[in-house]
Amino acid sequence: MNLNIVNTPFLLLDEARMQRNIDRLDVHVKRLGVSLRPHVKTAKSVAVAERLFNGSKGPITVSTLLEAEYFADHGYTDMIYAIGISPDKLERVVALRKRGVDIAVLLDSQEQAEALATAGRDHGVTIAALIEIDCDGERAGLTPQDAEIVTIASYLHQHAELRGVLLHAGGSYACETDAEKAAAAEHERASAVLAAEAIRAAGVPCPVVSVGSTPTAHYARDLTGVTEVRAGVYVFFDLVMAGINVCTLDDIALSVVTTVIGHRNDQGWIMTDAGWMAMSRDRGTAGQAVDQGYGVVADSNGRVIPDLIMIRTSQEHGVLALREGSNASLPDLPVGTKLRILPNHACATAAQHSSFYVLDPHGRAGDISAVWPRINGW
Amino acid sequence: MNLNIVNTPFLLLDEARMQRNIDRLDVHVKRLGVSLRPHVKTAKSVAVAERLFNGSKGPITVSTLLEAEYFADHGYTDMIYAIGISPDKLERVVALRKRGVDIAVLLDSQEQAEALATAGRDHGVTIAALIEIDCDGERAGLTPQDAEIVTIASYLHQHAELRGVLLHAGGSYACETDAEKAAAAEHERASAVLAAEAIRAAGVPCPVVSVGSTPTAHYARDLTGVTEVRAGVYVFFDLVMAGINVCTLDDIALSVVTTVIGHRNDQGWIMTDAGWMAMSRDRGTAGQAVDQGYGVVADSNGRVIPDLIMIRTSQEHGVLALREGSNASLPDLPVGTKLRILPNHACATAAQHSSFYVLDPHGRAGDISAVWPRINGW
Repeated sequence: MNLNIVNTPFLLLDEARMQRNIDRLDVHVKRLGVSLRPHVKTAKSVAVAERLFNGSKGPITVSTLLEAEYFADHGYTDMIYAIGISPDKLERVVALRKRGVDIAVLLDSQEQAEALATAGRDHGVTIAALIEIDCDGERAGLTPQDAEIVTIASYLHQHAELRGVLLHAGGSYACETDAEKAAAAEHERASAVLAAEAIRAAGVPCPVVSVGSTPTAHYARDLTGVTEVRAGVYVFFDLVMAGINVCTLDDIALSVVTTVIGHRNDQGWIMTDAGWMAMSRDRGTAGQAVDQGYGVVADSNGRVIPDLIMIRTSQEHGVLALREGSNASLPDLPVGTKLRILPNHACATAAQHSSFYVLDPHGRAGDISAVWPRINGW
Repeated sequence: MNLNIVNTPFLLLDEARMQRNIDRLDVHVKRLGVSLRPHVKTAKSVAVAERLFNGSKGPITVSTLLEAEYFADHGYTDMIYAIGISPDKLERVVALRKRGVDIAVLLDSQEQAEALATAGRDHGVTIAALIEIDCDGERAGLTPQDAEIVTIASYLHQHAELRGVLLHAGGSYACETDAEKAAAAEHERASAVLAAEAIRAAGVPCPVVSVGSTPTAHYARDLTGVTEVRAGVYVFFDLVMAGINVCTLDDIALSVVTTVIGHRNDQGWIMTDAGWMAMSRDRGTAGQAVDQGYGVVADSNGRVIPDLIMIRTSQEHGVLALREGSNASLPDLPVGTKLRILPNHACATAAQHSSFYVLDPHGRAGDISAVWPRINGW
């Protein structure tokens, strides 16, 4: 199969780039002496997950219970479900634990801890939990100094199982310079360790100190006190990560293959069949130094076409045009031309598709070596 | 089954509201003496489509060939694929026509017309096409006065089949007042008729004059010269449509059911388990008079909670907060509370889900009468 004959739009995965991205973080994290617990929310694919651990079934982070169940079906037994738990989801967690899956949940309130204890008692299992810590006001979690952390930790230690603390430095996505990213990583580390130490000072064991985001994972210089790093988008990268210099455009392993379906010469537009349904509505680069619209355009071999971006979309239309202020001239791309669009946000774009079409790392240009299914839903 | 026991997030369809929305456009279009060819790109569900035609298999508009094949599998035989055709897709169109499906395609260039003629000759079928006309510079198509229309029409008449002209007034989504929407509808009608008359003046039959968008379909006062109206989102409605007064919040038939998973009292935030994965990244109300964030919050019975909106999302987190400038106080919604989020854009939100959970129009509050599958992909 060749990418030129598959009906567009579809999601293309450059396996060689992906492997390079996986190896890059692997080497970095190993050098810092901690282990990696990749977030599979971007890939949602066992075929991709296999490449993360050289074929073994390593520890993973999941964003939905469907991911947990899917990876459990494929032999993964060590997971953190990294979204605050609601009581009604504990039944599925219990079922997973009864299957022998060590899934730990996340929480940041006493009421959640009590629900955990009740469910564990009712079903005769011990449910492990991590306490979510917040270091930058971006999402959920207790601030590292909050006395509630120790209260909840003690309660969990007595009535369930305290696995540790977990932190996600979402603010790092706004860090442009290397120094800012390194500082965000150090702040994330220090916040997590502060919370863990407070728990230990109260006599409660806190074995896991889990941090991570792709920018902080890559820019951490020291991870003393941390036991594991989570990251997800590092496997594929995207324009948002390129926009804050965590990767280059040539590292981006995902693209949407599209076909030219028309032209509006009066507007300077090239019409394609990849709209927001194929790209997602994510406009993550809109707030960055360079707004890439809905994506950067490359030719069918993956070579970026200067200044050509997807400026607007409707459901199944993507409009390509030159970036504002560009001196380039609009390339001649007849109806039927295949192009690759590099996405703003790998997680959001991948979610619009049910499979990865894998670019053969050893084949001729455009050869597809496999189609890897991926899952969506909850 | 009751909505309170289904694991969140999931897509809820209020069937009673949907039926009211379907009936409303049906009555309006019949009064204007034209037929309706609903766009099934929003529903992507045969169960919903059945309600559009009182159980019969009426004419439909599709946005992907997968929709065409799926609806063909369920007995639909009259369709327009309303995205400019690329030559490589003609094989699937030919296969559909050979199955007895009268699928017409869309084009706006001579090169597409020639590809159609070639494919028809090669496969021994006649492929019908409509010429896409543009009236507001929003997307693809030839302007109504363009001489190219007649050239292409004549060519199609000789070498394939000219089915007619098709126009979509995308600009109507920005019309706030009733007068503006009515003017957009009249401009759409007049543009389509102008193009059709030019074709007929050249001696080429132009049987179909197809117009439509939900705002113009509802606000058209006269459709002389038009043969059919297309619209899709009218079945469900959404906040974008409410924002331009095509419907009220009480007409919106789709919502995402979510569970409260935590609180950030320091920030005034309520955390839920519906993030952009469940809502989509669509921010269609951002440019409207009232920005609804990622959605308007209602309780589990569908009653809108004053000034509470989803202000930010990550993949599986949705943050609820009071609208900026609100004098309301944050409601007390403990962990585990079920809520419904009304979406910005029904097409984009539905696309994030594989099923509709149908609210029983005759049951007790929250009763789910059915789960209707829907399709995604190409």
